[in-house]
Amino acid sequence: MQIAIPLFERMTALDAIGPYETLQRLPGATVVFVGESKGEVRTENGFLGLTVDATFDEVPHPDVVVVPGGVGTREVRTVDDHPLVNWVKEVHRSTRFTTSVCTGAEVLGAAGLLNGLSATTHWSAYDTLAKLGAEPTEQRVVEHLDERIITAAGVSSGIDMALRLSELLVDADAARAMQLMIEYDPQPPFDAGSVSKAGDAAMARVIEYTRDKS
Amino acid sequence: MQIAIPLFERMTALDAIGPYETLQRLPGATVVFVGESKGEVRTENGFLGLTVDATFDEVPHPDVVVVPGGVGTREVRTVDDHPLVNWVKEVHRSTRFTTSVCTGAEVLGAAGLLNGLSATTHWSAYDTLAKLGAEPTEQRVVEHLDERIITAAGVSSGIDMALRLSELLVDADAARAMQLMIEYDPQPPFDAGSVSKAGDAAMARVIEYTRDKS
Repeated sequence: MQIAIPLFERMTALDAIGPYETLQRLPGATVVFVGESKGEVRTENGFLGLTVDATFDEVPHPDVVVVPGGVGTREVRTVDDHPLVNWVKEVHRSTRFTTSVCTGAEVLGAAGLLNGLSATTHWSAYDTLAKLGAEPTEQRVVEHLDERIITAAGVSSGIDMALRLSELLVDADAARAMQLMIEYDPQPPFDAGSVSKAGDAAMARVIEYTRDKS
Repeated sequence: MQIAIPLFERMTALDAIGPYETLQRLPGATVVFVGESKGEVRTENGFLGLTVDATFDEVPHPDVVVVPGGVGTREVRTVDDHPLVNWVKEVHRSTRFTTSVCTGAEVLGAAGLLNGLSATTHWSAYDTLAKLGAEPTEQRVVEHLDERIITAAGVSSGIDMALRLSELLVDADAARAMQLMIEYDPQPPFDAGSVSKAGDAAMARVIEYTRDKS
């Protein structure tokens, strides 16, 4: 079972690493990090380098695809004939599941895979996703099993999605085993993980910190 | 504010990337991935390469240290005078917080920082941690603010710890903003994130899958 995770410049690392860490211990699973060219890509802030081990051409028939997001998806979806978009469109014909985390949904949208489908993404990116043909839905994980497409909300939601994927790929006990191995027993000290719960003061900080970094 | 995250061979990626993703957007924060030598290290399964950007010598006074775990900590704690252990011991004198995720606690223990202190680690590693002088505690995050030491349980728990760290480094609204940015509103489809909750069937799978991979 080959799980392919594309990496690209200015991506968000946790979008990729959450599902990778959850899925990599499934029996028979291999994970390959794929991209336009082999070698290092950098996250949106430049702080972290991650290695692309295989080019898109070298991974023509992955069983599962997990497309991460990040500000880098802006370029991916706006460039004509982007290699990542073309690869997703092509490999989706034979995947068991084609999935996304965060603004990775925009790549699925640009590949024409979300036309008329409900889908989720980071809470700040619903409008963009709608322009790509999807019906944005405020939900942590949205699945269309007939279409073999699953989208997850922002960044950390990829872990939740990967547990559901583990169930679909193997069974519920396998998913529980993955959850236990990564000790995913969440106990966040605050309850601010969605727009409706975070409150105005936290949202003001998001705006302030995002402005400072851009 | 410099946040240093050591990388080493056969580490567990999510241990490092969970806290990195949570802390990197704090105002004034820079994250540096540090190691014995610059260049790539590989995770325990070989699937993922991560880049070390600075040697230990180049990061003498980080404000925050987050030591990840993984099977690679076995070598780190058993080799005499291991560079990572020596660096942690040295930099702890001036950090605001020295922290660990998963079996990263063993590195803090090997550095002599956990003597007589309660601490947590991955559920499978309590015995080893006890041998390194700590009092293992079944808790998601254990903090000793006077000693400036915080340990987190297995793999995914680093995200919870990093939210608490965000509060300590800035304030509660900053922590809530980080939680909202990474949309950490956990909704795992199963409740199997701890040994007491996972059940016998999931534990049997953990044993089976771990045996197959080793």
